[in-house]
Amino acid sequence: MTPRTGTRPMPDLSASFPGPFPVSPHAADTAGQLERWLAAYPLVASERARAALCDITGHGVARTFPAADPAGLELCADLLLWLTAFDDAYGEQTGAADPGALVARVAGAVHVLNGRRPPGGGDVFCAALADALARLGERAAPERFLRVAAAVRDSLYGLVWEAHALAAGGRVGVPEYRAMRPHTVFVATVTALAEPVLGYELAPAARASSPVRELESAVADLAGWINDLASYDRERARAGGAEPFGLPTLLAAAEGYGIDKAFAAVCALCEEEAGKARARIVELTAAGGPVAAHARALEGVAASYVWHIGHRRYDGG
Amino acid sequence: MTPRTGTRPMPDLSASFPGPFPVSPHAADTAGQLERWLAAYPLVASERARAALCDITGHGVARTFPAADPAGLELCADLLLWLTAFDDAYGEQTGAADPGALVARVAGAVHVLNGRRPPGGGDVFCAALADALARLGERAAPERFLRVAAAVRDSLYGLVWEAHALAAGGRVGVPEYRAMRPHTVFVATVTALAEPVLGYELAPAARASSPVRELESAVADLAGWINDLASYDRERARAGGAEPFGLPTLLAAAEGYGIDKAFAAVCALCEEEAGKARARIVELTAAGGPVAAHARALEGVAASYVWHIGHRRYDGG
Repeated sequence: MTPRTGTRPMPDLSASFPGPFPVSPHAADTAGQLERWLAAYPLVASERARAALCDITGHGVARTFPAADPAGLELCADLLLWLTAFDDAYGEQTGAADPGALVARVAGAVHVLNGRRPPGGGDVFCAALADALARLGERAAPERFLRVAAAVRDSLYGLVWEAHALAAGGRVGVPEYRAMRPHTVFVATVTALAEPVLGYELAPAARASSPVRELESAVADLAGWINDLASYDRERARAGGAEPFGLPTLLAAAEGYGIDKAFAAVCALCEEEAGKARARIVELTAAGGPVAAHARALEGVAASYVWHIGHRRYDGG
Repeated sequence: MTPRTGTRPMPDLSASFPGPFPVSPHAADTAGQLERWLAAYPLVASERARAALCDITGHGVARTFPAADPAGLELCADLLLWLTAFDDAYGEQTGAADPGALVARVAGAVHVLNGRRPPGGGDVFCAALADALARLGERAAPERFLRVAAAVRDSLYGLVWEAHALAAGGRVGVPEYRAMRPHTVFVATVTALAEPVLGYELAPAARASSPVRELESAVADLAGWINDLASYDRERARAGGAEPFGLPTLLAAAEGYGIDKAFAAVCALCEEEAGKARARIVELTAAGGPVAAHARALEGVAASYVWHIGHRRYDGG
């Protein structure tokens, strides 16, 4: 662990993800395109929140897929921003206060994911999702489209699951939380976008192989857990001092730890997953071909989540 | 409309789906295989319910896909029985009483759909789903597998949506109900199984074409609505005389109809959808090739739902 500017330690990823991370030359353009997309589809009411979200998402995806073409970055940024804005508007505490309303909103998105018009035409979130999926459909063959659409469904289901968990007091076991966290942090969707955005194709056997699955799993765990660490103080302040729903709190409850000890344990877990991810990246990159492309893509996914937590969105704002 | 044995009218489908419907010679074998599958995966506690469910599902899929090979029928029967048993165990009133418990159960299934082990290993429903999906994976190329898996996700999401709607008093608008009903009656999953089970393949343009989408939509509406009509008395009796959650009740509320008038209106809607479906079946069958195979498959899907409602599961049992 290394201390950071705030009061709490963060994992030391300097051995596994040392940075600086490659960044696409289209980063600023992607952020600007997001501003224009949100002018057409006003998903975020607050101007300040909108600017921060366009900035972190545009510059984030430019680190996720630094080699992607501008249209690919734009698609990835739009879908990721859509999920984040949907979560901000209807998920978390809003969803916990009225899970049925969240469930009905997600149902609208499910119709769009099936290429159907939602009842009543749907809201601006439905329209924006339809726009992004139309571009995905032009770029991605059916199998890839279906894989991304499944990941979006699972991300939305993750928000529904989280709202119910929060409504019930936020007491879920660590294994259950760990299994759902890749969906609620959207890393499964970002990973599913790698193939259509970067233009490689994993063979079924490679996709099902242990090294690929372990790499994806390690990156997914790392993404969720460092987000939990980085957002802990902000979310605790928002909740008036109540423990936020995340791995530090759940691990503390499960193990009888104080929060400092739980934080240290989560830092250690992050370092462990980062080490596993790096080992698999080295192994798969050496193998060459599509698995090497996939390993480099997952390296970018991990790097972008590591980069994310230094953004001002996490500075108690 | 024509009267049936019960007290209420049912739609007259004699012009559009006159029957008798073709039936696979493997019908009884499929029902027997389901009994053996449920011995390995005890999804249904009551022996009487288990026997009825194996019978209706085995003989039903034998009418859905009469030309399918035994392994294809078995797969289709297992997945359809799995969804029905899951709904009986965790959905409807049980789900409405504790939507969070249903949401957690569905989360387990989502992990299985992603080829992952659920936290704690999962329950017998997870194990049975994994078994069926493994066979689907052997039979279906990735695109088809993903299409079926998306439909299963949507069916499960439909149960979550329905549980929340029931918990809130069952007052949803007719367009919202109509949009979700294909998922809760599982017809979207059955339709997605047609290609891997029967071995034809729709081209993307054909799948997106108006005639194909209108046929699928008409069959989906018909399946849900005749089920609502056929199960009305049984569900009303179960609920101690309260109006069941279904199109007759919702249409009555929306239009200010008495239940007899609503029943007549739903019968007319069913006859209209059946007529639309038949016209598209004639049109697509004449076109030949994969769309003709798809039209014949959808004809079987419609026929099996029409056949279903005459089964003893709907005789107030």
